Amino acid sequence: MIHRDQLPFFTRIDTRWNDNDMLGHINNVVYYSYFEATILRFLDRGGLTDWQKSDVAAFAVENLCRFHKPLSYPEIIDAGLAVEHIGTSSVRYRIALFRQGDTTPAADGHWVHVFVDKTDERPTPIPAVIRRHFEAHALSPR
Amino acid sequence: MIHRDQLPFFTRIDTRWNDNDMLGHINNVVYYSYFEATILRFLDRGGLTDWQKSDVAAFAVENLCRFHKPLSYPEIIDAGLAVEHIGTSSVRYRIALFRQGDTTPAADGHWVHVFVDKTDERPTPIPAVIRRHFEAHALSPR
Amino acid sequence: MIHRDQLPFFTRIDTRWNDNDMLGHINNVVYYSYFEATILRFLDRGGLTDWQKSDVAAFAVENLCRFHKPLSYPEIIDAGLAVEHIGTSSVRYRIALFRQGDTTPAADGHWVHVFVDKTDERPTPIPAVIRRHFEAHALSPR
Amino acid sequence: MIHRDQLPFFTRIDTRWNDNDMLGHINNVVYYSYFEATILRFLDRGGLTDWQKSDVAAFAVENLCRFHKPLSYPEIIDAGLAVEHIGTSSVRYRIALFRQGDTTPAADGHWVHVFVDKTDERPTPIPAVIRRHFEAHALSPR
Repeated sequence: MIHRDQLPFFTRIDTRWNDNDMLGHINNVVYYSYFEATILRFLDRGGLTDWQKSDVAAFAVENLCRFHKPLSYPEIIDAGLAVEHIGTSSVRYRIALFRQGDTTPAADGHWVHVFVDKTDERPTPIPAVIRRHFEAHALSPR
Repeated sequence: MIHRDQLPFFTRIDTRWNDNDMLGHINNVVYYSYFEATILRFLDRGGLTDWQKSDVAAFAVENLCRFHKPLSYPEIIDAGLAVEHIGTSSVRYRIALFRQGDTTPAADGHWVHVFVDKTDERPTPIPAVIRRHFEAHALSPR
Repeated sequence: MIHRDQLPFFTRIDTRWNDNDMLGHINNVVYYSYFEATILRFLDRGGLTDWQKSDVAAFAVENLCRFHKPLSYPEIIDAGLAVEHIGTSSVRYRIALFRQGDTTPAADGHWVHVFVDKTDERPTPIPAVIRRHFEAHALSPR
Repeated sequence: MIHRDQLPFFTRIDTRWNDNDMLGHINNVVYYSYFEATILRFLDRGGLTDWQKSDVAAFAVENLCRFHKPLSYPEIIDAGLAVEHIGTSSVRYRIALFRQGDTTPAADGHWVHVFVDKTDERPTPIPAVIRRHFEAHALSPR
């Protein structure tokens, strides 16, 4: 199980009332919107600030979530991210969602992005500024 | 047009990437989830903290939104609320969403709640503690 | 109260499990996504089939919903639409959502669209083909 | 790559306009709501029709999606499901989403459910009627 200290990037996620499902827990689908929000804030921090004007886009090719403990509105979530693997055009993020103050996650998983050229939607090398940002946020060993 | 100074309650709304639609603006539907979040935080502040354990529920009977200026992820929104009208069982909130620092809203509207008894889902008087909270947050005249 | 027979356009809406809220009813916010789906299918039917390639866009300026009876997943919804008012650049749709077989709606409301030129986002006359589609789908009197 | 013929259960998913993201494709998060809809219809078909009245609930413990080709509103999706593994309390579904008429999926993945007793939220054996439904819908070999 991943530990909070292994993750170099954190952001806060506010839950919304309609994130909860009929059972009173955050709907499983919504965890991926938290993952997505975490990744986008991480990329923003690294200087990829305007996707609409950029020459590249990042397409998800795979993602996964493991659910350990339920989360519920109105909890505030500490979302952590580390870069697990960097390829030529692709990157794999490890993401974990924590109840405030917890050291083990309520949920964790991964998300793989492939960078593509917007003109032909074919894989393109990760831009250098983004690559350095990824290298500076590697997953820490326990 | 309503002015920021007329609204006694404010809360911050974080936008999410998938709140944006294909045109790069917050989808019109999502504004209502911001309204809903604003109202629920306002009710929480007034002591109606646990809907699942409460004897009463609040059902929406009408809501409306007017869209003045587009909002877009990753903007952070200042959401303001005032109580416009208090009836025996119902309340009408005025809500407005502002870009940070703006004094006129990007969107504004209303939301009418009817309080019901959970056992029979019929209208019931607004609980006294909530009524006082409503009275303390009336819409200010210009 | 509007009656089913007054509405010239109908489409079917499938509810999704996570449309339901903690109280086991369709979340109030989600009704607007049903309104939006209804309008877009209506515009598709009229020949406005590809928004991304079109020179015009339709921006919502106001919408409203009144909630009469709760709807819940896994109900299938009959969504009806009529054109209530046609201006130079704007149109007002009347929309109502019915439980299958009902003649009075579970919810009804309106949605106002302004057509804009995509280059400057300023109002532009409703394209002739769309105007004729609107005229052919007026609200019927009782 | 999984083939359409390997999946014994199919259902139709209507996309909604606001399922699309800023890039004009179905948002990655929304695929999981299609997975969820597919599973719930499959369970409904097997006789688990009313979760709110049932003594058991099914909690997701892991899910995954691989994205092969983009899907976009207003496409209609053929969603297929097979049961890959049945344990004492848990089941693993294989799910794949197809463009209409395609034999290879636009996206595929899995979803693991653990059945729990609602009173204590601890794992409980899969009810016999549901187990038989699972056995009747195994993944077919190629």
